[in-house]
Amino acid sequence: MRIYELLLKKRNGHELTETEIDQLITGMLSGEIPDYQIAAWLMTVYFQGMTDRETYALTQAMAASGETLDLSAIPGVKVDKHSTGGVGDKTTLVLAPLVAACGVPVAKMSGHALGHTGGTLDKLASFPGLQTALTREHFIKQVQEIGVAIAGQTGRLAPADKQLYALRDATATVDSIPLIAASVMSKKLAAGCDAMVLDVKVGKGAFMQEPDDARELARLMVSIAQQHGKQAVAVITDMSQPLGSAIGNALEVKEAIATLRDQGPADLKELCLRLGSQMLLLANRTDNVTEAEQLLNDALSSGAALYKLAQMVTRQGGAADCVYHPELLPQAPICREVLPSGTGYVQSIDTLALGLTAMDLGAGRGSKESSIDLSVGLEILVKIGDHVRQGQCVARVHANTAQQAEAAVRRAEQAFVLCETPVETRPLILDQVSSGSKA
Amino acid sequence: MRIYELLLKKRNGHELTETEIDQLITGMLSGEIPDYQIAAWLMTVYFQGMTDRETYALTQAMAASGETLDLSAIPGVKVDKHSTGGVGDKTTLVLAPLVAACGVPVAKMSGHALGHTGGTLDKLASFPGLQTALTREHFIKQVQEIGVAIAGQTGRLAPADKQLYALRDATATVDSIPLIAASVMSKKLAAGCDAMVLDVKVGKGAFMQEPDDARELARLMVSIAQQHGKQAVAVITDMSQPLGSAIGNALEVKEAIATLRDQGPADLKELCLRLGSQMLLLANRTDNVTEAEQLLNDALSSGAALYKLAQMVTRQGGAADCVYHPELLPQAPICREVLPSGTGYVQSIDTLALGLTAMDLGAGRGSKESSIDLSVGLEILVKIGDHVRQGQCVARVHANTAQQAEAAVRRAEQAFVLCETPVETRPLILDQVSSGSKA
Repeated sequence: MRIYELLLKKRNGHELTETEIDQLITGMLSGEIPDYQIAAWLMTVYFQGMTDRETYALTQAMAASGETLDLSAIPGVKVDKHSTGGVGDKTTLVLAPLVAACGVPVAKMSGHALGHTGGTLDKLASFPGLQTALTREHFIKQVQEIGVAIAGQTGRLAPADKQLYALRDATATVDSIPLIAASVMSKKLAAGCDAMVLDVKVGKGAFMQEPDDARELARLMVSIAQQHGKQAVAVITDMSQPLGSAIGNALEVKEAIATLRDQGPADLKELCLRLGSQMLLLANRTDNVTEAEQLLNDALSSGAALYKLAQMVTRQGGAADCVYHPELLPQAPICREVLPSGTGYVQSIDTLALGLTAMDLGAGRGSKESSIDLSVGLEILVKIGDHVRQGQCVARVHANTAQQAEAAVRRAEQAFVLCETPVETRPLILDQVSSGSKA
Repeated sequence: MRIYELLLKKRNGHELTETEIDQLITGMLSGEIPDYQIAAWLMTVYFQGMTDRETYALTQAMAASGETLDLSAIPGVKVDKHSTGGVGDKTTLVLAPLVAACGVPVAKMSGHALGHTGGTLDKLASFPGLQTALTREHFIKQVQEIGVAIAGQTGRLAPADKQLYALRDATATVDSIPLIAASVMSKKLAAGCDAMVLDVKVGKGAFMQEPDDARELARLMVSIAQQHGKQAVAVITDMSQPLGSAIGNALEVKEAIATLRDQGPADLKELCLRLGSQMLLLANRTDNVTEAEQLLNDALSSGAALYKLAQMVTRQGGAADCVYHPELLPQAPICREVLPSGTGYVQSIDTLALGLTAMDLGAGRGSKESSIDLSVGLEILVKIGDHVRQGQCVARVHANTAQQAEAAVRRAEQAFVLCETPVETRPLILDQVSSGSKA
């Protein structure tokens, strides 16, 4: 009867106490509370929302539900980075070695692909032999010695989040802002960082479609961090078009390598400088944004950042020669051009459709069991506002079969909407929320 | 993924199709759809409601989920009667023999107590030896031969409703008007009646607290009946005070017997005449309300109705001498008076509290497994608007132990609110909705 009363209370719009939320989570983990009661609670939260206090309590209960990582053996301020996920988002592949090359330790736990957005672990698998299932000892020792490691998050960190996410995924309750915030932050807190930079993406290719929702998610995540005595900065960035040009695992790794050589797309570099400088500031590497950006630019032009990636790949058992010879990375046999049907300015790009097209080609998982084709994907060669002539190639499809390539070309063609009058270009970085901005 | 999409569709406020609702119910029954997805759907329905078309589809899917009763072997129009449940509602015990005594067959399936409201089957158990687990053959033969039978609803009728109700009961999704309507009507349709009279109770002692909700539930149930080509009449009645005076199983049977002798409380008789005359009209016994009430009154004054009860008790294996000697029915050893603390007019009666007090005494089930004490309960001797003097007995508690009696007296004392100025009496019958009234 107790759980029934909690459900009734929440359903009728009242706030649950910290103890009550803790009961829900521990009861779910122990199996005492059946899934159908948790599912009913999740749907209630979808409709009634959660107060900040409820969200703090849920985050705390999930963060404490399993092991927690102790990074104190690594000297310095450990700054984590998280993106809410977008199409073509290979930022972590650039940022981790780049920030480490500036002397700030990066001990990063990453995840697999989610829906139409890629996952860092899948992208890293493009390096033959590279391991992300690192032991805790290996992980910490590697960061101590070379300053950077990217490992897969084990199921032992925040297991309640894993269980709850599976239920949300089955009950259409994924897109609730407090549930998303608690899920992200419980994992970050269990992973033991001291501070964090959050990239909250908004637009057609992201989970958040509305700027106001993205702002609310950013505010909430920063507030949760603060509640745990950790500094956080959230940057709200545009996902109405793919980030950079590559979509697909090995293609994105190649673009990350190009960026670490300072030959990458302008938008990706802009984002890496913004997020990277915030990481340096939070780590007390400098107290000045201009100097932070200078440090990052130096690491790019000197080759130090690229070398850091090679070091990391080597230490995790991967083929580091790919870093200097990206042509050795997986490559799809078939390449087809996407040509627009007319002439005009790019008015919009259906980024979700492009993400799904890459998935269709085999770049993502249709189900949890299916495997990923590392070589396939898309290169998007235009941005919103660009002028395109009839017959000009706007994208390339990399596929394994001619049939898949044709289908992808047809779908990708529809993703570009042209118009006759010039279109304003969109800023990439829309807003920034930090612990300080809500004192 | 299919069920996920249904959940998303409903969650976002769109109507599910008949096929989709059918999928949900058949998938739930086969075990293909896990309980947590059904629970999420139920909570979505709580928040988003259901359209009439959705409610029709759910009713139909549940009615068709198991066996259906074929009453065609019984000549005449079979009219069922249902009450949404209230405190002291012993109407079926009076109506079934009364209507049968007027020559209209009554083949009634009944249920056990629900929450703070009693169940006809539990009340009937007051007759030593009486069986309600009748075979289908016995049930039909008894109605053919003596015109009346009251049996327990088997789990084989509308099993989907049973399964869904258990989930609603665990997930705080019971009080949704379309879910209530579909639940009631699926059982009525499976039970094979031709027409039905519905008693929708409203007030502190009922499940519906607001007249508008009761009216909506009445409209919806009548509309579902119509959709299935069956005539229905819903009468909305006041449950802001107990019906009649007895609360508790054997006490209510005694009051029903008194009413069949035409010596019962005025409100109970008024309701039985209203519901009974509607049953006679639907069964085409007469086309005239005045004549219908005359037939019912004749059956009461002639002793035919009481004799019909005795016949029914006998045919179901019960001790029929209790009908003519109600003092043989179970009787609690202890009787205590409830005395008000002052003088004044009865302004309100906390009917829910009185129902719960009777449960505390043992008249209801705390859980599905617990047994019922048939002898205990309350007699309420005043109605709203009555004038009460200090020291006047307003209620009697019938208990098994002095301790239980004292606790019940204390709780019952609080249930009567007196005031100094005269109080308007409340009408018992508030409204009536029939198939015709929505053409």
